[in-house]
Amino acid sequence: MEIQGKNLIGFEVSEQNSSVFFAINPVSGQNLEPAFSSVTMQDLEKAILKAKNAYLIYRKKSGNEKADFLDQIASEIENLGEDLIKRYTLESGLPEGRAIGERGRTVNQIRLFAELLREGSWVNATIDTALPDRQPLPRPDIRSMERPLGPVAVFGASNFPLAFSVAGGDTVSALAAGCTVVFKGHPSHPGTSELVGKAIIHAAKKCNMPDGVFSLIFDAGIEFGQALVKHPAIKAVGFTGSYKGGKSIFDAANARPEPIPVYAEMGSVNPVFVLPEILKEKGEAIASQYAASVTLGVGQFCTNPGLMFIPRDSDFTEVLKNHASKTTGGNLLNKGIQTAFLNGIANQSKQSEVLATGLTPEGEMVAQPFFLATDYENFCKNEILTKEVFGPSSILVQASGIDEIYEAAEKLEGHLTATVWGTSAELESHSLLIEILEQKVGRLVINGFPTGVEVCHAMVHGGPFPATTDSRSTSVGTHAITRFTRPLCYQDMPDQLLPDELKEKNPLNITRKENGKWVYTE
Amino acid sequence: MEIQGKNLIGFEVSEQNSSVFFAINPVSGQNLEPAFSSVTMQDLEKAILKAKNAYLIYRKKSGNEKADFLDQIASEIENLGEDLIKRYTLESGLPEGRAIGERGRTVNQIRLFAELLREGSWVNATIDTALPDRQPLPRPDIRSMERPLGPVAVFGASNFPLAFSVAGGDTVSALAAGCTVVFKGHPSHPGTSELVGKAIIHAAKKCNMPDGVFSLIFDAGIEFGQALVKHPAIKAVGFTGSYKGGKSIFDAANARPEPIPVYAEMGSVNPVFVLPEILKEKGEAIASQYAASVTLGVGQFCTNPGLMFIPRDSDFTEVLKNHASKTTGGNLLNKGIQTAFLNGIANQSKQSEVLATGLTPEGEMVAQPFFLATDYENFCKNEILTKEVFGPSSILVQASGIDEIYEAAEKLEGHLTATVWGTSAELESHSLLIEILEQKVGRLVINGFPTGVEVCHAMVHGGPFPATTDSRSTSVGTHAITRFTRPLCYQDMPDQLLPDELKEKNPLNITRKENGKWVYTE
Repeated sequence: MEIQGKNLIGFEVSEQNSSVFFAINPVSGQNLEPAFSSVTMQDLEKAILKAKNAYLIYRKKSGNEKADFLDQIASEIENLGEDLIKRYTLESGLPEGRAIGERGRTVNQIRLFAELLREGSWVNATIDTALPDRQPLPRPDIRSMERPLGPVAVFGASNFPLAFSVAGGDTVSALAAGCTVVFKGHPSHPGTSELVGKAIIHAAKKCNMPDGVFSLIFDAGIEFGQALVKHPAIKAVGFTGSYKGGKSIFDAANARPEPIPVYAEMGSVNPVFVLPEILKEKGEAIASQYAASVTLGVGQFCTNPGLMFIPRDSDFTEVLKNHASKTTGGNLLNKGIQTAFLNGIANQSKQSEVLATGLTPEGEMVAQPFFLATDYENFCKNEILTKEVFGPSSILVQASGIDEIYEAAEKLEGHLTATVWGTSAELESHSLLIEILEQKVGRLVINGFPTGVEVCHAMVHGGPFPATTDSRSTSVGTHAITRFTRPLCYQDMPDQLLPDELKEKNPLNITRKENGKWVYTE
Repeated sequence: MEIQGKNLIGFEVSEQNSSVFFAINPVSGQNLEPAFSSVTMQDLEKAILKAKNAYLIYRKKSGNEKADFLDQIASEIENLGEDLIKRYTLESGLPEGRAIGERGRTVNQIRLFAELLREGSWVNATIDTALPDRQPLPRPDIRSMERPLGPVAVFGASNFPLAFSVAGGDTVSALAAGCTVVFKGHPSHPGTSELVGKAIIHAAKKCNMPDGVFSLIFDAGIEFGQALVKHPAIKAVGFTGSYKGGKSIFDAANARPEPIPVYAEMGSVNPVFVLPEILKEKGEAIASQYAASVTLGVGQFCTNPGLMFIPRDSDFTEVLKNHASKTTGGNLLNKGIQTAFLNGIANQSKQSEVLATGLTPEGEMVAQPFFLATDYENFCKNEILTKEVFGPSSILVQASGIDEIYEAAEKLEGHLTATVWGTSAELESHSLLIEILEQKVGRLVINGFPTGVEVCHAMVHGGPFPATTDSRSTSVGTHAITRFTRPLCYQDMPDQLLPDELKEKNPLNITRKENGKWVYTE
């Protein structure tokens, strides 16, 4: 499929314009053809108006209709075949295997939401039937369920050109909820974005979805993104990226005459805590998995472990040094990430010791793995050591004893994940450490590493601020759908006018709460 | 029970101080003894610190333990007996019947949450079990459930001295969620607040809950409330009151270094739409119920219908005039509400016609019912006619036809409720009107009036901004509990360390989602 470099304003392809930008191949540092037209304010307005009008139709689509649409999107993405994989690798510098794996993750996620919609119980249908003879006053019939919020703005992440981008978790959970989407493509991978955007548009047309159910806009700056967030027709925002970007969107959304929810996933340091016994028992395995986890995907994951706290142990340090020095870096996604990585490492290594560095491959935008180390006392004195450096680096913090490990846990701000390594006996005796960490994160990992976010029903990819702007939600897994809904309640609504989910005879056979009891159907 | 006029800082009663205020009897206009000490900054800090420390214990209480605590609170409130009812009527000017009714509503609500906790499934337990042999990578064991947010600040409303006050829906849903509460009492009813606050403290002691699980502070100004919202240990806010008050708390919470969720219910005009056929068929009943609904409780309800749109009908107008002129006003809750009501009526009646006024009883702070009328064209020209006037008033808007009724619906901002009156045939043929209104409100009422918010599982007392600051929630009914929770996910956590809700054998027998299937127990 040819890449045109134009915005997808619903079913229309925009005119080319004079303000353009190029994707850059991070391996060669060269521009990739074609030029991409930045969206114009006029086209942005048109995309939002289409999303607003399409919403009036799309919000009434049944679960099965939306599920068919999602399944069709998944098939259309698969149908892009090699074109998509090639463009992905050119734009991201990531290897083909990763591209294929991420495509699989993306379509599986889409199909999981389709399954959720077909099953139908996610709407939280709750029914309290009328009690006309109740004294002193009769009780009316009250029925509620989750309904969509309206048109949603989504901002793609640089580090997952498929799974957290155009047809990623934010878009798909919003579409599943019944919301229309205006997507701002990440300027690092506009070609991949266009291909996937067209796949969504094809699916929309085939499934008879309204023009405007999805639009894709391009811009290499922040002006149009801000305008999108501030537009009165937009009712919620999904974002994955930096703290700076996410917080500025959050602030803009709250300063609107009508504030709207912002789900910004802004990354995290993902601290790992190792208890003394397991460090002795499994030091070799922990060191090797840690080194691999830090450098996987050139460390460009939100769940990359950036800090590991251990009781001081010179044997382990040697073992880790050995594993760390065998790791290999790779291409970063873009120049901005490279600059931030180099600055971050330069600043952190001034305040800590370089334990080991990994191998550096050749290339324009490569990063070399950095394993830093320091003691807890020094760590506490240098706030810079607590901050995320996006890329293949991590800091080993050596505590003088278990008290400092607890203190470090207490002092944490919000993170996506925290990890505890311990023997069975240690985990039991340090349940207080687990309790402390529960209050700081969205996901608690035991005897593993946080890299790799399983797409499933139970996943929570979120966490207290500053990991996200809304700890009450997840951006991965099926619970992500309720970010884009709100409950609506019907009082004494005639049965034939109720949504099917709330009709007396439960025609969709969903699980509901009726007069306080869970009612299921097989 | 003697009222002391002192702050309840956890289990401690504060010292009296020099900054005091009095409750005012709205019937006589006279101060009520005793003087109430405003909280000091030192005591506020102490209350918050206690809430923070108590939270570490309270968050681990089981559903049954929290349910016993809530049930005990309900009993302690009932045990206050006549003392509570007398003080309530003195401070509010509301009649004894209302006090008794509201007490019943309050204790029933508390017991409904206790029931919810004993049943236990509200935590949304979701389990995806490990797939160790999955290719290319094994799946870890992932389990998630709702966990409490932390210490919560709650601000009471003036208009429900029991049901939306010290032991009202916000406090009780926060306690049910596992959060500790610092409650700022409304200065209109500090004596009622103190009595109920002491009931909660008694219950906490009897049930062996930690000192700090609940505190009650007094202040007649806004300084200490702002300090409470800005304190880093506070993790969420519940509020019921004016737009001005709610919005200022929302803005303060979002300006914190760590923003926190604010659930502010800020009132609403609750428009009623009457379709032509039913107006002819049931005009008499509609007029009489409308007049009663507007003036119930001297119109001091968030769900008081402040606007009614009808197709122009001079017969109905006469009928309404007749019913309206027979209504009776009463005492307003305080001087501030009276001043706002008189100003609101003065401003609105300049831009509309006074259709009828009701009878005025004698008293210091009374309000006379006002029924205004205007045509749709004039309504559109005067924004002041769209704003809530808290108290016994409403505006009848006469539309030239059905198109103007639709246009009025389209133009609405967010409200708690909207109501449609129609015959069966009309409701079917005007389903588009219902669809428009669905997007504007939290509760849609058919052929009834919105006054009266049923406490049940399916209730949604909420709605889009500016009715509330978070449309994704309700402040009445059991779904209110998830305002004070967030999902937390455990990866590969040993079974014995998991919360009971997530243990493999489901020891609490709750409804869970396991590997995508709903699993129930009888």
